[in-house]
This record gives sequence, structure tokens and C-alpha cells, in this order.
Amino acid sequence: MSVYQAPLRDMQLLVEQALHKSGLANCSGLEEFDSDLVSAVLEEAGKFASGELAPLNTVGDAEGCRFENGRVTTPPGWKDAYRQFCEAGWMGLALPAEYGGQSLPKFIAQPVNEMWLSANLAFVMFHALAQGGSEILLHFGTDEQKQRYLEPIITGRWTVAMALTEPGAGSDLGALTTKAIPGRDGSYLIKGQKIYITYGDHDMAENIVHLVLARTPDAPAGSRGISLFAVPKFRIGNDGRPGESNDLVCTGIEHKTGLHGSPTCSISYGDNDNCYGELIGHENRGLEAMFVLMNEARLSCGMQGVGLGEAGFQRAQAYALERIQGTDAVNGGGRTAIAHHPDVARMLLSIRSEVMGLRGLGYLIAALIDKAEHTDHADERKTLQARIALLTPVFKAYATEKANLMAGTTIQVFGGMGFVEETGVAQLMRDARITTIYEGTTGIQARDLVFRKIKADGGEALLHLLAEIDQDTEQFHADNPFGPHLRQNASAVRQAVEIINSAANHSLALNAGGVPFLEALGKLCCAWQLACTANTAIKREHENPQYYRNLRALADYYFAFTVPHIAAHLTTFRHADRGVAEYRFEP
Amino acid sequence: MSVYQAPLRDMQLLVEQALHKSGLANCSGLEEFDSDLVSAVLEEAGKFASGELAPLNTVGDAEGCRFENGRVTTPPGWKDAYRQFCEAGWMGLALPAEYGGQSLPKFIAQPVNEMWLSANLAFVMFHALAQGGSEILLHFGTDEQKQRYLEPIITGRWTVAMALTEPGAGSDLGALTTKAIPGRDGSYLIKGQKIYITYGDHDMAENIVHLVLARTPDAPAGSRGISLFAVPKFRIGNDGRPGESNDLVCTGIEHKTGLHGSPTCSISYGDNDNCYGELIGHENRGLEAMFVLMNEARLSCGMQGVGLGEAGFQRAQAYALERIQGTDAVNGGGRTAIAHHPDVARMLLSIRSEVMGLRGLGYLIAALIDKAEHTDHADERKTLQARIALLTPVFKAYATEKANLMAGTTIQVFGGMGFVEETGVAQLMRDARITTIYEGTTGIQARDLVFRKIKADGGEALLHLLAEIDQDTEQFHADNPFGPHLRQNASAVRQAVEIINSAANHSLALNAGGVPFLEALGKLCCAWQLACTANTAIKREHENPQYYRNLRALADYYFAFTVPHIAAHLTTFRHADRGVAEYRFEP
Repeated sequence: MSVYQAPLRDMQLLVEQALHKSGLANCSGLEEFDSDLVSAVLEEAGKFASGELAPLNTVGDAEGCRFENGRVTTPPGWKDAYRQFCEAGWMGLALPAEYGGQSLPKFIAQPVNEMWLSANLAFVMFHALAQGGSEILLHFGTDEQKQRYLEPIITGRWTVAMALTEPGAGSDLGALTTKAIPGRDGSYLIKGQKIYITYGDHDMAENIVHLVLARTPDAPAGSRGISLFAVPKFRIGNDGRPGESNDLVCTGIEHKTGLHGSPTCSISYGDNDNCYGELIGHENRGLEAMFVLMNEARLSCGMQGVGLGEAGFQRAQAYALERIQGTDAVNGGGRTAIAHHPDVARMLLSIRSEVMGLRGLGYLIAALIDKAEHTDHADERKTLQARIALLTPVFKAYATEKANLMAGTTIQVFGGMGFVEETGVAQLMRDARITTIYEGTTGIQARDLVFRKIKADGGEALLHLLAEIDQDTEQFHADNPFGPHLRQNASAVRQAVEIINSAANHSLALNAGGVPFLEALGKLCCAWQLACTANTAIKREHENPQYYRNLRALADYYFAFTVPHIAAHLTTFRHADRGVAEYRFEP
Repeated sequence: MSVYQAPLRDMQLLVEQALHKSGLANCSGLEEFDSDLVSAVLEEAGKFASGELAPLNTVGDAEGCRFENGRVTTPPGWKDAYRQFCEAGWMGLALPAEYGGQSLPKFIAQPVNEMWLSANLAFVMFHALAQGGSEILLHFGTDEQKQRYLEPIITGRWTVAMALTEPGAGSDLGALTTKAIPGRDGSYLIKGQKIYITYGDHDMAENIVHLVLARTPDAPAGSRGISLFAVPKFRIGNDGRPGESNDLVCTGIEHKTGLHGSPTCSISYGDNDNCYGELIGHENRGLEAMFVLMNEARLSCGMQGVGLGEAGFQRAQAYALERIQGTDAVNGGGRTAIAHHPDVARMLLSIRSEVMGLRGLGYLIAALIDKAEHTDHADERKTLQARIALLTPVFKAYATEKANLMAGTTIQVFGGMGFVEETGVAQLMRDARITTIYEGTTGIQARDLVFRKIKADGGEALLHLLAEIDQDTEQFHADNPFGPHLRQNASAVRQAVEIINSAANHSLALNAGGVPFLEALGKLCCAWQLACTANTAIKREHENPQYYRNLRALADYYFAFTVPHIAAHLTTFRHADRGVAEYRFEP
């Protein structure tokens, strides 16, 4: 049963909002990507998501992947869907046409990605890896490496796997011990054990390019001694085709609470001291290269939050409109669909408002990336890149934290039926659970935000964002009531920036208060997006009264139910050493 | 691997706090239940929980129940553990000695229950049913029924099942359609389909007493036409022993996301028009009787939240003290256990502070129930009963909502390992997910709180509680800084009571704002309990400095990280119609 329909109207509206807010709408060189093209792409992608991917989502969850004799078998239907996905050109949508992609801008690719993530997150995990892997090669690969790897990856003949984590090196990549011994021909021999490798092995493509972090013999300790290697599952012959097996073996897959359809592999590299790898970029600068992929992956995680939220909302709303139970306590009358119970409406709106705010933010970041690429002004590019860097950890962490809450709320709307696996919504909760962990936990995003994205530039990028929020409110329609609330909360965040700037790096309050601060900023960003959407809705109400009134109501809801917590988070942030300073954990 | 150890020190401290705060400490008739007895019982129960029940928890999750040919088989080890549980007398701990119980007061039974719930929630689901079923029979059964049913239930030879829900009647019990046709001998013939019946069938006891809600032929429509029947799986012979099968059959068990070890049954009653049932209490007053069990079950749900939270905390703390990763950003030095990362400490404290606050509340309610039973003054009893009735929905809903968050946080502390099923903490999340749904959803608890427990008595019971919180702060030690914050937040809740009193029953804001209001009151109650515990800790610091400093630190943490959100929830409560009023859901 395909239960997902791409929310095309919402998507188009927020693409338009992102184009406008990023300034991309006035940017030359993108004229061909007009609203007709956007509509056509989104419509086509929507059909593929509903028709091909969504029906496989519960299959993947129920059947999972199998591991036998060092080989991973994906769930029934996976392989065929993968072939179709590649043949339709979805893999390389936003990758260079030169290597087989479609060169579409990210502002179009982002809603398309959202559809895949809503329809079947476990399946489509390979996609962000291909995207990020390609960008690494485009940035850091030699011409020869680009020729060798990019076309097969972008067309989906080969997939990308990202081998970072080791049993003793998770969040702390600097502790990894996998070795890379240089050979005479310029290649390296890789040796080590890696875990948690998504699609580290599978049966869908003819080769797998492992991007492996490892240390050369004389590398400095810690994160400044890590290099990045491309390690193909099958060595690549002179004809560019996969040939003999490389010396790497999948030793098992994890039995996870969610994402059953996505194999999470342990891989042993170089058991026979013959695992070929080639250096990508410079020795000891592997983390820098990996972070290109990591940033891509973090944005994808944020979109996973949006996608899972939307998938949950659609199911919860459909059920709540259909399930008759009790009577309407406010309007009277006979038995009613539960959507008309105020508390159920509250739950549905909590999901929908969060999804719309986060979607606005996710699309905006995509448009900012396009803008940074298309601008001719170095200063503007720098400012845009700082904005993107600032918003990335907020979007990653806030969207995924909310994805967990939204999945819980979706189950709650279904009541007892939500707890029964066949209903399908428990899977959302189980799948969502990893999103706050992988690609950097929420705590790590908060550190990144507070220290690298705010403190390191004296808060400039954030103050610039807050000023823009203020400016936006000045342009609000006379009937838009959200300006003063936004300005007041932006001002409260501004005061927190002063605290961040004046505190020492080792301040306990700063270190313990990162997540509450990120929660405050995440809510402010969503409130900003929702208020802007409401502004459009107010102006266009006559075009489609119910739709636009609903969009305005979402902002109303969010400012009443969620925005009041911004001040609470910031109060916490100011006192975040309390209790943490005195408590001693003991076994 | 038994990973749970009963937190005896915390439990004894909070039992003492509950005795003091309920006034039970000065109550005559309970002298024999002194602290030595409490210690002895808790210690013994702790051994059973760690040694017998906890090791079966992952077995139950992994193996689940089986359903074949109308019969349910419980997981390996379940049956033997049940026998031991009954033989040790745990089933009837707080039930009358006259019928085979131990007549212990609830203030001792509550921490014991908590241990079972921490160790193996799925297993012990039968216990609250036996407790509640016995209380129904004690209140509403005839002497003959008491003789027939109580001893077998209290000694565990027979179990109790609660058959309320039907496919079309979940939260709205008034819609149920199961029929009860009176026969000539005073018995009834039951006919209908019920679902979601915990332990509706199993292989652990010689009989199962189904308490079934049904309608007699001329019953009024809705909830005033519902009667309660005892329907034994095996008809009871004149010798009081189970004899021939009654006409009821288990038609299936649910495939749930959690609680795999607890069978959730669908039962068909009277397929052959020969399902014997006997009326409990009066016709058409079944809900009143069922609510005795329901209140019991709601308190048990609240304790489930505490128990799951404690189980998660123990695992998360143990892992965080053992897992080495990264360096300490605040204190410097080499690699460190993750418990010393401020954000991980924050997560651990968020769980522990919530558990301690909720435990204080749960034990207090138990002591208040004892007090209401032991007082000779009708007025005092009435006041106590109003307090218990007020706190029940708050405890049920707030503790179970937090249980979900705490389980998520526990997984987050484990990082990627938490997502792997073998680690065992994903089970906490899956098990916890039903607790906000069964025995009345959070939305229903909020309605109960706002309308029946506050508005119906003009807020008297709540205002009385708030006055007591204020009084308590007057007694605080000079070094206790929490009084002003508590009074300020109590005062904010007091203002909300005025809104509740003055609003109409059909006010949208009142109906949509119930959950935010309940969240505020839940946090206030936990803050109150934690501040009282901190007060004791301040006075006793010299006895065990680190332990008591930690308890004070928990209150510090809670007032910095959680209490600021009380005001935010109350702001929402005042505007809870916003957005909800205007939004129209459409398919």
C-alpha cells in the first residue's frame, strides 16, 4: 500500500520562498530552471516516489537485509528499484552532466531528495553517499580519478560507501587506527577494521567505492594525521571495468532497531595484506576531504527529518480524518472523526508546523549553496558560505531531534494501532532513531555550532542572520502579526551570542548549554520560515482561501505552542553549568 | 546479562519522603511497617528483580510470544519465573492476607512494583491486572464472588485480563457493542469481540478471569449502559476448581513494536452462544467498577515510566563511565570517559532528575492512598482522595511522556551502539512507546485533569496542593535556593486555574491546551519533589557528602534545564486555540 504522495503544492511554494530569500531568484545563469521545469521534475519524482519506492518501504522493514558468506542481499524488490532509479537519471540529478548527471541546481534536487526520504529512507541511503562521494572526487580527485570514478558513480553503476568509524573511534575520528602503507606505484595497502558502513556491501551495483579514512606510517597523531583513500570492492582494470576482488571482506551486518532495509556493514580491509587503495587529495588532509561528504550528509540528515515528518503527517492526518471516535467537545454534534478533537488537531499541527518550518529551512540552505556557486563576488560567496556553515548543524540536529518527536506523535495519533507493526508508523520511530546519531550526534552539532560557527567568527554569521530576520519583519504585510515576536526572540538570541563571545572555550556552561542553545536557534529559524510563509499566505489568500488560511494557521500554532520555549532554552543556556558542575557519576 | 540493580538507597530515601509528606509517618496502625521492614522487603525484591526477572527481559523481547491453534505460548523461562514470583508471595504483596496476600501498605509495594517494571515490564504486566482485579472484587463483588475468585487471583493460580477495547470502541468506551444476555440462573451469556487484551491468553496459570465490559439488552446507549462481567476461561466447578472450557477463544495476538513478551490478545466471546459470565456489581455501572482497576492501572503506568527511566539511566551511566572517546573540553587532560563530556552529563542528568522527581511523586501517591485508608476522619479522607485523583492523571501522563524521551536519551548516550538491538536499550524505546497510549492516552489524561479534577471542584484540590507547595518552601533550609522559584511557578499555575474556572467547557483553548497545562503541572510536581529531596540532602550532607551533593545537584539541574519550560507551557495554555481554531484538515 503506497501511503505517500509528494506534497507538491507545499514544495513548490517553499522552493519559491527559498529562491526569493536566497536571492537566487535574481541570479543570472539559472533562467532555464523556471517554475515549469521545477513542476515537471517534482511531478515526475513524485510519481516515482509513490509508485516505486514507497511500496517497498514496509517490505524492506519486514524482510531486512541478509548476510551470508560475506555477502549482503538486499530486500526483495530493492535491486530492481535501484536499476530503475538509476535508469531514470535520479542518481545524478544535481551532479555534472559532463559525467552523466543532469546538472540541476540543488534548489530543485532538495525537494526531490525529500520525496525519496519520505518514501523509503532505508532504500535511498546510497543516494547521499553518491552525491557526497562525487563532490569529494570533484574537489579533491586527480583528473585520472575523476575519469575513473565519476561516471560510474553518477550513473549508479557503482555505489559509494563511507568507512570512518572503528570500534574505538566513533565521534572521535582522531582515534582511528586503520593503516595505509604506501607502495612503489603510488598506491597504498589498507589494513584495518571499520564498522557502521552504510551499504558497505550489497547486491545492487557492479562495484562499491569505499572511501576509507586511514593513517599513513608517519602520520601525526590525532585528526591531523588522517588521509582519505578510495578502495574499490573490485579492482579497476585498464579498461575502467571492475576486475578481480580487492582484499576486503564484509564480516557482518548490524541487527538494528530501524532502517532494516539498509545494510550497516562491518568491513575488514587487508586481511591478506593486499587491499588496494588510492589516496584522494593530500596525505594527512583526509578529514578536510571527508567533510565535504559529511556536510552533504548532514544536510541530507536534516532532510530525512523533514521527509520522515511529512510521511508521518500524511498517515496521521488520513487516519485522524477516517477514525470515528467520541464526540466533538467544542462544536457538539454526534460522533466525530478524531481529527476534530482539539488535542488530536494539536498533535497534527505540531507535526505539520514543524515540517513546514524545517522544509523552508532545508530548501533555503540548498538555494544558498546554489547562490554561492553562481555568484561572481568573492565577498558574497564568503558570506553565503558562512551562512550555510552556520545553518548546517542547526538544520541537521534540530530536524532530526524533531523527527523523533514527530514519529512519536504520529504513533500517538494512531493510539493502540500505532503500536502494532502492521500499521506501519512504528517503523517511522524506529527508522528516525538513528538520525540524531549518525553523521555527528546532536551534541556534536551543538559544539560545531557554538564553537566553530559562532565563537570562531565572533558571532558575525549569526548576527548577520538575526539582522536579516529583523529586516524581513519590516517587510511584513500589515495583517502579519508575527514580526514583533520574531524580533523579540531574535534579540534574545543576540544576547546569547554575547555570552558565547565572552565565555572561555573551556567554560562548562558553554559546553553543557550547546544543545539548549541549538534548540532555541532551531525554533527561531523555523518560526522565521513559517512567518515568511504566512506572509505570502496573507497576500495570496484570495487565490486559494483554505490552503492559505491553513498556512497562516500553522504560523499561529507555532508561535503559540513552540516559540514560547525559545526563551526557556535561552534561560537554560545562561545557567547550563547548574547541576552539571556538581554532579559526580559513580558506577 | 542482568543489568539492573534496584536503587535501594534512592528508594528508601523517597519512601521516607513520601511517609513524611503524606502524613503517614504519624499515622497509627502502621507501626509494624518500620524502616527495617521496608529495607528487608526492598532488598529481597531487588534480588528477585535482578536475579530472576531482568535476565528474561531480552529473552522476552527477542523470542516474543507464539500463537498457535488458539493458544498463546509465553517466551522461554516465563512460566517458571511466574511460578517463582507467585510462590515468593510477590503477587499479593499489597492485597489482603485474608485471601492469601501479605497486606503490606502501598507505600512499600510501590518501590517493589518499580523494580519489577524496571527489570522486565513485558513479563510483569499481569501484576497490575491482579492488583486491580482484586480491588474490583473487594469493592463490588458479592461474598460468594470474593470467595470464588480472590484467593486464586491473589496467590497467582489464576490471572486477570481486562477486556474493554473493541475495534470501534477504544478511547470511547461508550461505543462498545459486546452483549450480555441474562439467563434464568442469574448468570449472563456474553457475545462479542474484544481486542488489545493483555495476557488475554497465556500458559502460565490454570485459569484466566476476564473482566469484560458489555451491554445488557435494555441498557441505555453510551457509557451509562455498560456492565462488568467476570468471564473465566474455564468454568468454575462447585469445588471451586477450573473445569470445562468456557465459550471464548483467543483469535490472535498483535505483532507489536515493543512489549514482545506480553501477549496482546484478540478474544472472541460466545461464538457458540455459550459464554458464561457473571455480573460484578450493578447492571449499567460497569464503568464505575472498571475505573477502580483503571486508576490502579494508571498509577502502574506512571511507575512504568519511572521504572523504564531508571533502567535506562543505569545502562547509560554504566556505558558513559566505561566508553572512552575524545578529550575533556572543560578540564583538559587525555582521553576521557564520555560521562565527562558536558553534553553527555547533561543527558544523564536529564534522565536521573526526571526519574527522581517522578519517583518522589509516585511514592507520594502510594502513601496518600494508604493514608486515606487509615484515617478515621471522613473530611481528611475526602481531601486525600481528591489529591490522589488530581495527581493520578498528571503522574500517568507526565511519567509516560518522559519515559519516551528518557528512552530516546538513553539510546543517544550509546550513540550508534544504541541503535543496534543487541545492546538492549532500543527495547526501552520500543517498550515505552505504548505507555502514553494504554490506560487512557495523554490527551485523555489531560481532559480528565482539566475537566474532572480541576474544573469540577472549582480548582479546590489543585489550589490546596499549590498552597502546600508554598508551605513546604517556608520550611526549607536556609541553604536551599529553590523556594522562590517553586512559589513563582506555583503562582503561575494558580493563574491558570482561574482561566480553567472561568472558561466554558466547550472552550477550544481549554480543550486544546490540556496537554501543555498537564506538562506544566507535571514539571512543577517534579520540581517540588526534587526541591524537597534537595532539602533533605542539604541537611544530611555530612552523612554521605557525595551522595547528598549529587541529590542537590539534581534539583539544580532540573531548575536550570526543565523548570523554565513551565512558564512556556502556561503561555501556550493561555493561547491554545491559536492555529487550532483556523486550521482545516483535508484529505
